[in-house]
Amino acid sequence: MTFVFPQDILFKHCDPAGIVFFPRYFEMINDCVEAFFGQELGCSFVDIHKFGGIPTAEISAKFSAPSRHGDRLEIRLKCTKIGNASVGLVFDAICGDELRFAAKSALVFVSKEGKPQRLPTALRAALETFRGDVVSDE
Amino acid sequence: MTFVFPQDILFKHCDPAGIVFFPRYFEMINDCVEAFFGQELGCSFVDIHKFGGIPTAEISAKFSAPSRHGDRLEIRLKCTKIGNASVGLVFDAICGDELRFAAKSALVFVSKEGKPQRLPTALRAALETFRGDVVSDE
Amino acid sequence: MTFVFPQDILFKHCDPAGIVFFPRYFEMINDCVEAFFGQELGCSFVDIHKFGGIPTAEISAKFSAPSRHGDRLEIRLKCTKIGNASVGLVFDAICGDELRFAAKSALVFVSKEGKPQRLPTALRAALETFRGDVVSDE
Amino acid sequence: MTFVFPQDILFKHCDPAGIVFFPRYFEMINDCVEAFFGQELGCSFVDIHKFGGIPTAEISAKFSAPSRHGDRLEIRLKCTKIGNASVGLVFDAICGDELRFAAKSALVFVSKEGKPQRLPTALRAALETFRGDVVSDE
Repeated sequence: MTFVFPQDILFKHCDPAGIVFFPRYFEMINDCVEAFFGQELGCSFVDIHKFGGIPTAEISAKFSAPSRHGDRLEIRLKCTKIGNASVGLVFDAICGDELRFAAKSALVFVSKEGKPQRLPTALRAALETFRGDVVSDE
Repeated sequence: MTFVFPQDILFKHCDPAGIVFFPRYFEMINDCVEAFFGQELGCSFVDIHKFGGIPTAEISAKFSAPSRHGDRLEIRLKCTKIGNASVGLVFDAICGDELRFAAKSALVFVSKEGKPQRLPTALRAALETFRGDVVSDE
Repeated sequence: MTFVFPQDILFKHCDPAGIVFFPRYFEMINDCVEAFFGQELGCSFVDIHKFGGIPTAEISAKFSAPSRHGDRLEIRLKCTKIGNASVGLVFDAICGDELRFAAKSALVFVSKEGKPQRLPTALRAALETFRGDVVSDE
Repeated sequence: MTFVFPQDILFKHCDPAGIVFFPRYFEMINDCVEAFFGQELGCSFVDIHKFGGIPTAEISAKFSAPSRHGDRLEIRLKCTKIGNASVGLVFDAICGDELRFAAKSALVFVSKEGKPQRLPTALRAALETFRGDVVSDE
């Protein structure tokens, strides 16, 4: 399964060149992950932050075509890796049939003190549902 | 040579977990690049945007240790690649002697219409000064 | 009529004190206005920016109770003034039955050169529908 | 005395109309206040957030002229009110001799639980130094 997150490009996202300012894309990715955890994994960011956190440890993105104010994107998320304490995710953002960006991130489940924690069993099972058949380069 | 950009971690950069919200790191990287072009390359972002732009085409970052409100970072930039229309940059952010993140980006010099443009000769020469001895993986 | 804009408080909105960082409220207000123009007035921000703009000329807000990650707000917008080139708006944001903030803004319809322009007739008529019975203090 | 905070208008601050996106002005104001407390009052935001916070309870701004990428602003802060737990501040932002915005805010000193706390004596004394002769409209 793929988690699909609709994302309108709003005025606030765009720069003087009329295209999305790239740090805003990372906010969108973060919003997409927050929605994925809350809506699909039954493990909201609010709950996670009561006990610790799930910071992004690494992320990369390739912006293949610019997005403009008024565009409607679909960010599509798949899970590529379920480690002991970490989760690997991949994202494609499309507008119509054009790819706007592809991204890949690794999140780590941590305690309040920042120590990696084993992903809860229920969370692992839920993540398996969104496992992509990506042959990871890691 | 290395361009060094001081960056205080302010209240606005931090999230409920008390650490920098990672999209804010990308704003810092963008600010660092804007300062580099304006202060060191004699080619300000203001001037560039009169004729076109220099969007980030790809970027990756690994956040090796969290940064907290009040930390003073130093973002260190080197140029690793000078292509026809593109520039490869690498960044290390340190606080004291701790690495907080390492990042790598590719920028593309474009016209108003988004077409790649050859980097001006003076800009290429200025970039050479900041050329790092990184053995690129590209 | 009142325009109602649902707004979830996300991780990105919150600061190290665990509450919404107040500049983020102004982004929410801007998003609310953008949705209002596009969804209700038949005059999207995208269209407006083809011919000029509609910058916020003044704004004030009183934050009466903090909002936290996971809260679901409703931002309620009414139009209080329809000037020659300007629009007066008021906003109430509630969570359950608690008021989180009340705000008031004035927008000005301008040309590309920044000159105030008379609000188009269709826009004036649409705005009238959302006219509040607020006794303005202006 | 007046606290003067230099603020360059960077690429990230500007919108597709080429002018500062107004919520970014509120970030600048927050940065100005953070610098004022840390540099002039001997009471950094980092220290304040160990024991509580100093949220903005209300704020208003009038944007009298647009600011553009590359502009160098000076935000000038004065203290207009020192209440039991609250502080009133006013701000003028100028570029050359043009006023870009004038703003007014009220901050409240609170405990971790959000209860208003009496401003410490040393902080009151330091604030007095920046007291403006503004005849407040409150």
